[in-house]
Amino acid sequence: MREIIKANFKIEEANAPIEKAEEDFVKSQQGYKVELISDLKEAGEKEVGLYKINGFVDLCKGPHLDSTGEIDPQSFKLNRISGVYWKSDEKNKQLQRIYGLAFENKNALKEYLKQIEEAGKRDHRKLGKELDLFCFSDLVGPGLPMFTPKGTIIIDELKKHIETVCRNHGFEKVMCPSLAKIELFELSGHAKKFGEELFRVTSSREHDFALKPVQCPHHTQVYASKKRSYRDLPIRYMESDKMYRAEKSGEVGGLSRVYAITVEDGHSFCRIDQVKDEVKNLISIIKDFYSGLGMWDNHWVSLSVRDYSHPEKYIGTSEDWDLCEKMLEEISDEMGLDAQRREGEAALYGPKLDFMFKDALGKEIQIPTVQVDFATPKRFNLVYTDNTGKEINPVMVHRAVLGSYERFLVLLIEHYAGAFPTWLSPVQTMIIPVSEKFNEYGNKILKELKQNDIRAEIDDSDESLGKRIRNAEKQKIPYILVVGEKEKGSESVAVRSRDNKEQNVLKIGEFIENIEKEIKEKK
Amino acid sequence: MREIIKANFKIEEANAPIEKAEEDFVKSQQGYKVELISDLKEAGEKEVGLYKINGFVDLCKGPHLDSTGEIDPQSFKLNRISGVYWKSDEKNKQLQRIYGLAFENKNALKEYLKQIEEAGKRDHRKLGKELDLFCFSDLVGPGLPMFTPKGTIIIDELKKHIETVCRNHGFEKVMCPSLAKIELFELSGHAKKFGEELFRVTSSREHDFALKPVQCPHHTQVYASKKRSYRDLPIRYMESDKMYRAEKSGEVGGLSRVYAITVEDGHSFCRIDQVKDEVKNLISIIKDFYSGLGMWDNHWVSLSVRDYSHPEKYIGTSEDWDLCEKMLEEISDEMGLDAQRREGEAALYGPKLDFMFKDALGKEIQIPTVQVDFATPKRFNLVYTDNTGKEINPVMVHRAVLGSYERFLVLLIEHYAGAFPTWLSPVQTMIIPVSEKFNEYGNKILKELKQNDIRAEIDDSDESLGKRIRNAEKQKIPYILVVGEKEKGSESVAVRSRDNKEQNVLKIGEFIENIEKEIKEKK
Repeated sequence: MREIIKANFKIEEANAPIEKAEEDFVKSQQGYKVELISDLKEAGEKEVGLYKINGFVDLCKGPHLDSTGEIDPQSFKLNRISGVYWKSDEKNKQLQRIYGLAFENKNALKEYLKQIEEAGKRDHRKLGKELDLFCFSDLVGPGLPMFTPKGTIIIDELKKHIETVCRNHGFEKVMCPSLAKIELFELSGHAKKFGEELFRVTSSREHDFALKPVQCPHHTQVYASKKRSYRDLPIRYMESDKMYRAEKSGEVGGLSRVYAITVEDGHSFCRIDQVKDEVKNLISIIKDFYSGLGMWDNHWVSLSVRDYSHPEKYIGTSEDWDLCEKMLEEISDEMGLDAQRREGEAALYGPKLDFMFKDALGKEIQIPTVQVDFATPKRFNLVYTDNTGKEINPVMVHRAVLGSYERFLVLLIEHYAGAFPTWLSPVQTMIIPVSEKFNEYGNKILKELKQNDIRAEIDDSDESLGKRIRNAEKQKIPYILVVGEKEKGSESVAVRSRDNKEQNVLKIGEFIENIEKEIKEKK
Repeated sequence: MREIIKANFKIEEANAPIEKAEEDFVKSQQGYKVELISDLKEAGEKEVGLYKINGFVDLCKGPHLDSTGEIDPQSFKLNRISGVYWKSDEKNKQLQRIYGLAFENKNALKEYLKQIEEAGKRDHRKLGKELDLFCFSDLVGPGLPMFTPKGTIIIDELKKHIETVCRNHGFEKVMCPSLAKIELFELSGHAKKFGEELFRVTSSREHDFALKPVQCPHHTQVYASKKRSYRDLPIRYMESDKMYRAEKSGEVGGLSRVYAITVEDGHSFCRIDQVKDEVKNLISIIKDFYSGLGMWDNHWVSLSVRDYSHPEKYIGTSEDWDLCEKMLEEISDEMGLDAQRREGEAALYGPKLDFMFKDALGKEIQIPTVQVDFATPKRFNLVYTDNTGKEINPVMVHRAVLGSYERFLVLLIEHYAGAFPTWLSPVQTMIIPVSEKFNEYGNKILKELKQNDIRAEIDDSDESLGKRIRNAEKQKIPYILVVGEKEKGSESVAVRSRDNKEQNVLKIGEFIENIEKEIKEKK
């Protein structure tokens, strides 16, 4: 690399007609490039992007620097190699990929490397194993994580929290099957949208189903199961269930890319005159939830509207769209969201408000969204009767709050570096008797904590006191309660807090009161 | 029928060699019988059972009466016709089936018809629709029920209850995917066991998975994800998740036979010296749960042991079996279960205790079971290290408490005829203001009830007071609160109880206290 920089080779654009490029690469025996060009030909391309460096011709759309000499030898780094499958398909050959970084100056590189190191420590796969949150099995297969008791506690706490918040805003839980006839998704448009990502379910008894890639079509069918009157609306359904996507086998890994994601999904069916209040209602849910996690202060909102120069890309009348976009703008003003207009970012069926947060490493994350949908109720012929007995299509409002539990867990693990707030911690307190003599007292406290629904464990193994404390610290348990002679005598516990490293002796009742308050307030 | 009885035809057994029978039925153009005979031939049968009545020859194993004249013309009834698919496959032709009943005497018939009428009123499909608990959609497909908000509440309450009971007995929740590579089920033996009932999952990206027909293989993989020491055992996993069975398409219906059943499943991994205590622990769970539902007093227990004349039908050594059977017998004595020995009823891998209950119609139901399994941990090479560092296979104990939520809901709907105990009722109280003037007071009470986590609704529609009360009664809501002038003045409610039909005026605080107690005690 340093030699190439020193040589200061020119980097020249050398685009060519596709046939010519193919001929040249066949001649130079660049089989992979020939394969890519044949894909491009199939896609109807007439010309391919090429760049030339010191005689080497690469298939690339650019842009590039003008010459290799422009790179500062102090501000680049070859940082990683890895084996990857050609076209991400594990049936193909494995290639070696070399990763390189280049920055404008030395300091920018240094800062980035530090950030990467920090991210590495927080990597959810590493922490997930260390904290025993989830696991994989060769027999079950990659892309199919299993949640251990500890990981399941976190997901259950999140579920309880989001369901309580949503219930307080009028949502009701429903339970739908994972399967449906393909006709359901053909009518909704998802069969076409997901295409290759759709899992098909068959049996030797000639069944033919699809695994659901989204929840909305099933929810329309619960709505459709009864006559609805204008007085019944809004009707709001929520469900935390698995949705299935046939990801490329070479691309699944950790919790970020899996075959089944457990999505916390919700849909409101309402009258047109209710849409505005409903959207506000849904934004309140998002605000309540992210405030609880201390993430609300660090966000911005996108008002994602249509691409006005390409109306053909959308469903629905231009009047409906104008109405909806204006409504979302008003809501942004009234709620002080300061939403930034993004043209062309709307969904197929309507405009939306997207909420962007930053995680602990400054990475931007878009999870919550509120989308107004006129099209789906019409496709499924959903109706309610108005006060004159006329049948009208309701409006459907889609909302995501935490998105999928798997990806949200990745965010939480990396955001907190595994040190979850007490309400989410799988083990909230670890009791450590200083010696065997105090095991009985330790177990008495364990029982008392459990009776108060505090998740507690005791480490009364033969390990040394220091080792046991270090083990509990490694598990990032919020409170370690050390008990010995003094504590037993005064019915108290010596509390070591994970977050402030202080040790305080508290009466057991006092400790319970403090931790209960902390759990309740989700601090 | 009456003519046939009067004619007093003889019913003669006329078994024949299979080739002869086939020849005769081909001659008489009885195509369906020919098809059945060809199946029997394939299964290796040499002779078929035939009966002759007045020249008509039927394929039947018997037994029969000696002559048609033995039937009392007063004690039989042709009670139903229905269309059924040949061999229960909806791709086959539909046939007309005629159902007939015959009893020893008139009274037995009458009694049975009364029972059937009562069962009809309690039919879960009928009540499920009337009470809006679940629904079906042609687009989703038969065999794939969707639970409405009301049905979901019942399932969630059951789930909360069973999870609390099990957690108090040391169980921890895990979450496993619905899919796995077929190898997992080949190793566990379930691929062979379920055969045609297995759903396969594929995609155009060449994935090849199976939908899990049981939970145990996944749970073994969570166990196997970490090193386990003798000190860690017992380890107990529970999970309420869907399991999939490719039932015959012509046989699915209601909630009793569906493609996906949500099973509340649990497995303990323990040392051999812990098995006895563990089985007792699991029986306590079953006892706690069914006592809570008021069904414990009416049960009997089967000690299902192996068929001693066919040891080849089972897995494991005869010493292990003897030990286990003796252990279960001792447990039965110590816990006063009075278990009745049933030879040949054991599972493939070990003996079990099965609990039999009776529902409101006197029908026997076998749901809870505790099974001791030496084989599975060996197949999956599960181990723990004992105090000398040696690797030992744990024993796996399978248990079912409520079985599947779908079938348990059928049992509950039919047992209670839809009048669920208050803790399970989707709507626990309905508030009915006597006129519009008292809607405000009614809504104030609604808010107060909801704040106390009581599931309440208000009917302030324009319908007459009588109609609104009747509607709430039809919905089998435990408490109807009527409010008018007198109630508003005294901050009280006029309570109409579903169960005793009395009307009492209570202070609102008093009512809340009563219903909270009832919910907590699950009466």
